[in-house]
Amino acid sequence: MLHIFLLFSLIFTSTNVLAQDFCVANTASGIVTPSGYPCIMEANVTSDDFAFSGLGVPGNTSNIISAAVTPAFVGQYPAVNGLGLSAARLDLAPGGVIPMHTHPGANELLYVVHGHITCGFISSANKVYLKTLKRGDVMVFPQGLLHFQINAAGKRPSLAIVTFSSPSPGLQILDFALFANDLPSSLLEKSTFLDDAQVKKLKGVLGGT
Amino acid sequence: MLHIFLLFSLIFTSTNVLAQDFCVANTASGIVTPSGYPCIMEANVTSDDFAFSGLGVPGNTSNIISAAVTPAFVGQYPAVNGLGLSAARLDLAPGGVIPMHTHPGANELLYVVHGHITCGFISSANKVYLKTLKRGDVMVFPQGLLHFQINAAGKRPSLAIVTFSSPSPGLQILDFALFANDLPSSLLEKSTFLDDAQVKKLKGVLGGT
Amino acid sequence: MLHIFLLFSLIFTSTNVLAQDFCVANTASGIVTPSGYPCIMEANVTSDDFAFSGLGVPGNTSNIISAAVTPAFVGQYPAVNGLGLSAARLDLAPGGVIPMHTHPGANELLYVVHGHITCGFISSANKVYLKTLKRGDVMVFPQGLLHFQINAAGKRPSLAIVTFSSPSPGLQILDFALFANDLPSSLLEKSTFLDDAQVKKLKGVLGGT
Amino acid sequence: MLHIFLLFSLIFTSTNVLAQDFCVANTASGIVTPSGYPCIMEANVTSDDFAFSGLGVPGNTSNIISAAVTPAFVGQYPAVNGLGLSAARLDLAPGGVIPMHTHPGANELLYVVHGHITCGFISSANKVYLKTLKRGDVMVFPQGLLHFQINAAGKRPSLAIVTFSSPSPGLQILDFALFANDLPSSLLEKSTFLDDAQVKKLKGVLGGT
Amino acid sequence: MLHIFLLFSLIFTSTNVLAQDFCVANTASGIVTPSGYPCIMEANVTSDDFAFSGLGVPGNTSNIISAAVTPAFVGQYPAVNGLGLSAARLDLAPGGVIPMHTHPGANELLYVVHGHITCGFISSANKVYLKTLKRGDVMVFPQGLLHFQINAAGKRPSLAIVTFSSPSPGLQILDFALFANDLPSSLLEKSTFLDDAQVKKLKGVLGGT
Amino acid sequence: MLHIFLLFSLIFTSTNVLAQDFCVANTASGIVTPSGYPCIMEANVTSDDFAFSGLGVPGNTSNIISAAVTPAFVGQYPAVNGLGLSAARLDLAPGGVIPMHTHPGANELLYVVHGHITCGFISSANKVYLKTLKRGDVMVFPQGLLHFQINAAGKRPSLAIVTFSSPSPGLQILDFALFANDLPSSLLEKSTFLDDAQVKKLKGVLGGT
Repeated sequence: MLHIFLLFSLIFTSTNVLAQDFCVANTASGIVTPSGYPCIMEANVTSDDFAFSGLGVPGNTSNIISAAVTPAFVGQYPAVNGLGLSAARLDLAPGGVIPMHTHPGANELLYVVHGHITCGFISSANKVYLKTLKRGDVMVFPQGLLHFQINAAGKRPSLAIVTFSSPSPGLQILDFALFANDLPSSLLEKSTFLDDAQVKKLKGVLGGT
Repeated sequence: MLHIFLLFSLIFTSTNVLAQDFCVANTASGIVTPSGYPCIMEANVTSDDFAFSGLGVPGNTSNIISAAVTPAFVGQYPAVNGLGLSAARLDLAPGGVIPMHTHPGANELLYVVHGHITCGFISSANKVYLKTLKRGDVMVFPQGLLHFQINAAGKRPSLAIVTFSSPSPGLQILDFALFANDLPSSLLEKSTFLDDAQVKKLKGVLGGT
Repeated sequence: MLHIFLLFSLIFTSTNVLAQDFCVANTASGIVTPSGYPCIMEANVTSDDFAFSGLGVPGNTSNIISAAVTPAFVGQYPAVNGLGLSAARLDLAPGGVIPMHTHPGANELLYVVHGHITCGFISSANKVYLKTLKRGDVMVFPQGLLHFQINAAGKRPSLAIVTFSSPSPGLQILDFALFANDLPSSLLEKSTFLDDAQVKKLKGVLGGT
Repeated sequence: MLHIFLLFSLIFTSTNVLAQDFCVANTASGIVTPSGYPCIMEANVTSDDFAFSGLGVPGNTSNIISAAVTPAFVGQYPAVNGLGLSAARLDLAPGGVIPMHTHPGANELLYVVHGHITCGFISSANKVYLKTLKRGDVMVFPQGLLHFQINAAGKRPSLAIVTFSSPSPGLQILDFALFANDLPSSLLEKSTFLDDAQVKKLKGVLGGT
Repeated sequence: MLHIFLLFSLIFTSTNVLAQDFCVANTASGIVTPSGYPCIMEANVTSDDFAFSGLGVPGNTSNIISAAVTPAFVGQYPAVNGLGLSAARLDLAPGGVIPMHTHPGANELLYVVHGHITCGFISSANKVYLKTLKRGDVMVFPQGLLHFQINAAGKRPSLAIVTFSSPSPGLQILDFALFANDLPSSLLEKSTFLDDAQVKKLKGVLGGT
Repeated sequence: MLHIFLLFSLIFTSTNVLAQDFCVANTASGIVTPSGYPCIMEANVTSDDFAFSGLGVPGNTSNIISAAVTPAFVGQYPAVNGLGLSAARLDLAPGGVIPMHTHPGANELLYVVHGHITCGFISSANKVYLKTLKRGDVMVFPQGLLHFQINAAGKRPSLAIVTFSSPSPGLQILDFALFANDLPSSLLEKSTFLDDAQVKKLKGVLGGT
């Protein structure tokens, strides 16, 4: 039966070159395309490329929002390149909040590992979808819509794992988009109807100019 | 040469049934799928379905934002169903502004028909891209990112036509998402860091509860 | 400022009809298309549609594989329709195994909630990618490739949450595909090189004829 | 080991409903969407749905072009619905020609079953790609570009099988598009620079008005 | 509140690298892929990349077709790379015509900036869809189908802006595809049924050999 | 009329650079992305790139499976890059079999050039779809599902041409995935329920360790 081996080896030799079962990102190539990063040569890919331990480490929640986001996007986890998936870890200390934000490039599915989390999103039709989730619950947040997560576990922390429908979901945090850059206050106020005092205050806190 | 006609007629008869060159939406069917609406039977489609006159009519800008948006999305213009395109008309009276908003489902390309318009968007990296466009200029706004348009033509009105990379781009206007629904003020303030007074004021104006 | 409200209400009225921010599946309609199920009318969608509690309930592992798979695919969790995402819960009792299988329609990302799990997949190039994961680790399994998960936590159970890049990832378990249907043994043996005794034995166990 | 059976049966029962490994078209439903036809219920799908014998029957080439096209698009072969593939049979009698045409919705791959065929296509850059193929050769024709096939087997017939990257590739035969409908001759001549005599002659032959 | 800034900065630092909110084309890299050009590093992207003034300049219509097409495809306007959109300007002097053509890679939406334009396209089913549009009207032309635009404003010029569902829509002008290259007249005549005199005449005018 | 030529030449010059009607793979560049290989510069593409003669040569069936697979995937046939299509030739000598396998990345359409072939696939719902095809018949095999082909022409050979919905369909042959690599026997037996003797035997034959 050695012939099977020889025949198939021949086939495998050629398919090997072009298989593209996967495309582990070569993030050091300096090249990115609309479909993602170039692939590492398959011969250089190992089991270690497919696994990622970064989401096992609690984020540092000793900050004003008492929360932390640890991404496993294609930049941190090159194996998701081209696979239409990525992930992140949300640590919510007591009182913690992931502030209002959007992912411009992906839908999101949240799974509560432990604790209770109040989650909400707002649709294009201006309707609020709000739920307090418990351990084991999941919730989806459609692409590009404003949403937030708030710890609802009282004095205990909560932990969630979120996955996205893209290796590069993007992340636009509302307060930073509005108040932490050089967008002129006059334009900001005219386009948001926020008061000048409010804008000045948050720009001050968040570093906007 | 009559045989050509007969042969091809035969072919066309069958391809006709299944061609799907286009799929003019049957918006009255009560059915929508992730790929869009069902198609009107091709035999019932006429030239009038492909043309749309709604963008030729100026919007009413006698309002507080001195601006108007007239959509030609699949709901108004069924011919774009399945085509990966739609459009809208932006009327900006003197002082007019299209407030900060996102399109969760599409990229946007703006063309200035007349006047001057200051346009800006903010990226996931929190960087502001700002331009004042003149007649004939175009600008793109990537999917899901906050952006706005402000009339920069002084005492004259401006007009822009925008097109989208989807028949259903969606539209989330920031102020309405935050202040014009039943999202509890406590959650809103916690997730946006806005002051209670600011929230109460805008909720009052915009009808939030 | 009431005029803002009126103007935007008008816009929202029309965009509301066609928004398609999401498309919660109407699984009772008797219709499925290549892009998924028809959408429930947005007016009838509530917060409860977006959350799902089924993954919070441990699967029954009192069976021969000492394991259980609890899906949150579009059939169980209609909110994922059209979103390019779904999920499942893997319970692995001591000695438990999720047997060799493929998902013909999706890539998979596995997150270890607790325990240790030995995971492996085999590429088109016939190479084995094998890792033993601990709590908090993630691993991806590319679409259509054979893979398996085995509890490696000794006398303790393990729990994983997996997400997929499709609302309908499909699931082909190798042993059931080969031995639990009416595929004639002669064809099966000829196409797999398995011995007749082996085929007869597993057909007997798994109900094949 | 009966427990395996019971456990997996349970899983299969639920995944069965939603699997969408395939979506055999229900072409009698009166519904078509941008993604294709609704699926026949999987319980009603049989082996016969996946096979198709229509391409085994020679087309009738007793016509002026001495050629025939037999399609296996989704209308004739419902199993290709949603699969991104379809096929057709090209019979070329001596002197036969498949006239200049495009497929607006698909790329094409041609395989010569027997005979010799001269194939050509013209790119957007106005460059001609021309080859005479022999038995066993393949050639690709990119989407939407003008192309043709001419029998080059002298006094013998040729046979080709073509496949497409869509279940509904469409087919626009140039002469019929120009001369076999009610497009006014004045518009046709102005937009093609063809002489009036030429237009009148071909309209006469092909039935245009 | 400085901690918010520090926390988010950290997140932004990593997401910045991989965000891909957009992918402004590096058209000088010598690389193009099926999904488009590589992206310019985000740090080097400025507001000027997103705006484009080329469509504000009237095309030169002092030619035999009394018309001009000014493209803003990815080659001219690198910001549309990967966005599923591009644009062009159509100038139609009195008597002007954009000759019969197709876009093999995109659907098209036309907006009349001023004047009147008679537009038509022909479907796979050989049906003509014809409309004379006035200022402000829009019309769609499905991918890969023959279409044309003729000035209908009498002694006045007309101007249209068209947008496409791809950064690289392609453009195949019928007369140039048929008569302005080295496609042998014998093959051309056999595949189009045009008379030899007609072919020779137009080849002479258009430079075909 | 020379002006037409000059005007259009100008347009073509620019569109030429960016047309992407096609993207013949530069497989020697060392770069592959999720969307495929970089394109050869259009100026260097010739007619020979689009045609491929490799499927006209019978495969060597003097082996234990009495069969051969000759691929025309993107690695062998660079013209299919980005086109959503590829092909392969299946030679089945008397008694020949293409063993149980999957294509993780593509749907498949098989055409019987001559002979009789018994084809089968197994769905996610564990149902067998089995047909014996004759010359001219076609059959589809959905993505990622186990399938096989067996010569049913008695003492005569059979020949089939298969096409795929991807330039890189991948190929996972079950026996090689299970028995021809370094997957530990203990894991293999635990995840497949195969007997140790069966595993050892096939590992011995196929070279697994």
